[in-house]
Amino acid sequence: MPAKKTTKKAPTTKKKKDYAKLSLALHKKLQGKLSVVTKSPLKTRDDWSLMYTPGVGAVSSYLARAPKETGKYTMKGNSVAVISDGSAVLGLGNIGPLAALPVMEGKCAIIKEMADIDGIPLILDVHDVEGVVSAVKAVAPTFGAINLEDIAAPQCFEIEERLKAELNIPVMHDDQHGTAIVVLAGLINAAKVTKRNLSDLRVVVVGAGAAGRAITLLLLKAGLQNIIVTDRKGIISTKRNDLVKYKYELAKITNPEKREGDLMVALSGAEVVIGVSGPGSLAQAHVEKMAERAIVFALANPIPEIMPEDAKRAGAYIVATGRSDFNNQINNSLAFPGIFKGALKNGVKKITDEMKLAAAKKIASLVKKPTPEEIIPSVMTPGLVKAVASVVK
Amino acid sequence: MPAKKTTKKAPTTKKKKDYAKLSLALHKKLQGKLSVVTKSPLKTRDDWSLMYTPGVGAVSSYLARAPKETGKYTMKGNSVAVISDGSAVLGLGNIGPLAALPVMEGKCAIIKEMADIDGIPLILDVHDVEGVVSAVKAVAPTFGAINLEDIAAPQCFEIEERLKAELNIPVMHDDQHGTAIVVLAGLINAAKVTKRNLSDLRVVVVGAGAAGRAITLLLLKAGLQNIIVTDRKGIISTKRNDLVKYKYELAKITNPEKREGDLMVALSGAEVVIGVSGPGSLAQAHVEKMAERAIVFALANPIPEIMPEDAKRAGAYIVATGRSDFNNQINNSLAFPGIFKGALKNGVKKITDEMKLAAAKKIASLVKKPTPEEIIPSVMTPGLVKAVASVVK
Repeated sequence: MPAKKTTKKAPTTKKKKDYAKLSLALHKKLQGKLSVVTKSPLKTRDDWSLMYTPGVGAVSSYLARAPKETGKYTMKGNSVAVISDGSAVLGLGNIGPLAALPVMEGKCAIIKEMADIDGIPLILDVHDVEGVVSAVKAVAPTFGAINLEDIAAPQCFEIEERLKAELNIPVMHDDQHGTAIVVLAGLINAAKVTKRNLSDLRVVVVGAGAAGRAITLLLLKAGLQNIIVTDRKGIISTKRNDLVKYKYELAKITNPEKREGDLMVALSGAEVVIGVSGPGSLAQAHVEKMAERAIVFALANPIPEIMPEDAKRAGAYIVATGRSDFNNQINNSLAFPGIFKGALKNGVKKITDEMKLAAAKKIASLVKKPTPEEIIPSVMTPGLVKAVASVVK
Repeated sequence: MPAKKTTKKAPTTKKKKDYAKLSLALHKKLQGKLSVVTKSPLKTRDDWSLMYTPGVGAVSSYLARAPKETGKYTMKGNSVAVISDGSAVLGLGNIGPLAALPVMEGKCAIIKEMADIDGIPLILDVHDVEGVVSAVKAVAPTFGAINLEDIAAPQCFEIEERLKAELNIPVMHDDQHGTAIVVLAGLINAAKVTKRNLSDLRVVVVGAGAAGRAITLLLLKAGLQNIIVTDRKGIISTKRNDLVKYKYELAKITNPEKREGDLMVALSGAEVVIGVSGPGSLAQAHVEKMAERAIVFALANPIPEIMPEDAKRAGAYIVATGRSDFNNQINNSLAFPGIFKGALKNGVKKITDEMKLAAAKKIASLVKKPTPEEIIPSVMTPGLVKAVASVVK
């Protein structure tokens, strides 16, 4: 039904265009979304003597002797750098660091408004693993934590692993773990609504990029056993000889039934499909192959893999997307502000899998009575950040 | 008169101790002097759609096509990174990046309060030329300009030169050029007060570090011809065989009378001495060797090379220090906020010598009727930043 589909997508496109125009105008008016302000005035000579020299000399001397106290006397203790090389920005791809800056500022605005953390956007004009790792390590002493953002796979995996190992502050690639945490939270409630055991769910993850891999790994940690990951060429299986290393590693720990073939084969009988690929990669025919009361997470942004009404018509019982204009928005902002808040407040040095699992459970628990139309809380939920922060310790 | 000197310095030490205690308490209370705030709220769903996705996607797409517009749509256009590796912090030396952070935050506070520019402190955990250059280049796209700070000589020279050559945004090492500009401004008025031609002044620069070298180069650019530079071993002369490269280069363009020997030899008959070394390096006997109506800039901070009352008793007619509690404060803050304001506003890519000379003249001109006790304006002078910015174009 291509004609019908086109008709249905038209209003969405129109709405998006309006936001585009309004957002461009707002950004130009604001000249950026963030500003740096001083917490105390510099009006009198005494202000200067306390905020700068000679007074600041005493603070520097003290921190030279007690470097671990730096977070208590500087903005380090409440700051997160939001860092990108611009290689995988939103759904726009490798558009470079300058074009990524508005997105990084947006994340900093969210982390400020939601968690009262000072987010500092940093865009990098280096793009290989070694370059990004060196640059982030060089500036890391400034910050309390590092949020990596919009860095392409597979480099993002090694970059994050190395920074986690080599720095003594928390490092999290939000496109991986923020997404995985919120997907798991949604799935916990979706299982509840459909009266299934979480660990018994048969899941297909469509898309084997940064988010797809992280979701898969976290669902395995959460006890799920039957997960199939697919990429453009079909099921990621150990029989394929075209897989890059990390996909081969995924193949070894997924697909227990050793299926081979395309997405249709993967989805046959599946209870859950999680799309983290791109618009149009799920058709109604795909959803029709799934088990009854199918759970469809179509997370491509801004245009989902399949529109909610199409998924429902094909038999889906629960549908979630990444969008704010449909029910069940799987939104990273449910997780990362609280994750970083907890890490900074509780002196956490590494974000562990246990913390991610606990955060997902906590987010899920904020929906008191989950229904097909409400498996995940809104980002406006009172107490959200505090609740998530409380389990990151 | 060592006993007398000790007595005179005691109150200063006491005052400094109070500032130390108060400043430590203030820093701990504030937990850092800066905060990042959002310029527009994130309350409604529409706010989110405009400040973040989907709206921000349009801004990113636009900047991918028109990267030169980035400064108009992000904080880049009004931001300066204040960057240090902590290798030469205040008078405290190589105390490392963490201990340098309060000073960098202080500079950011000054640039905000004086020039309404968003200063971002960045401390670096790399210390060789190559490491610092790579790190700064990597993060540079984020910012409108770079203020290097408290980096030791001689690395600071090559670091600045390379970054100026390799980046397309203004880069200035303030310890060098901010100081040089304000020293020249003070000297312009000191010459006027003592009815001498600026270009005829015989100057001795005590201290051949970052500031000493930059002051010397700018004074030569301003037309002065008779400058001697000294380090701990005496006059920097081409006859010495213990000079590192940059000092040898200085020797070639200074000391026209080819003097050799210690500071006493250098100062004999000099009209101006500019101390950028450390406390106690100028004695009354030194000042007594100078010409009549001697001009003494004792800029070591917080304890000058010689205290103003001692210099005056030895015959100095005009005395300037780096301190706010004496007349004639030679304060970098007179220059750098306006320099960066002008550079950002006027799209300047390099801070040239001509701009530095023009800034010095402009700062000097703000003192309508210079006197021995007022050769330099206060940082509180209305219109200061605007005036300096107007010549950086």
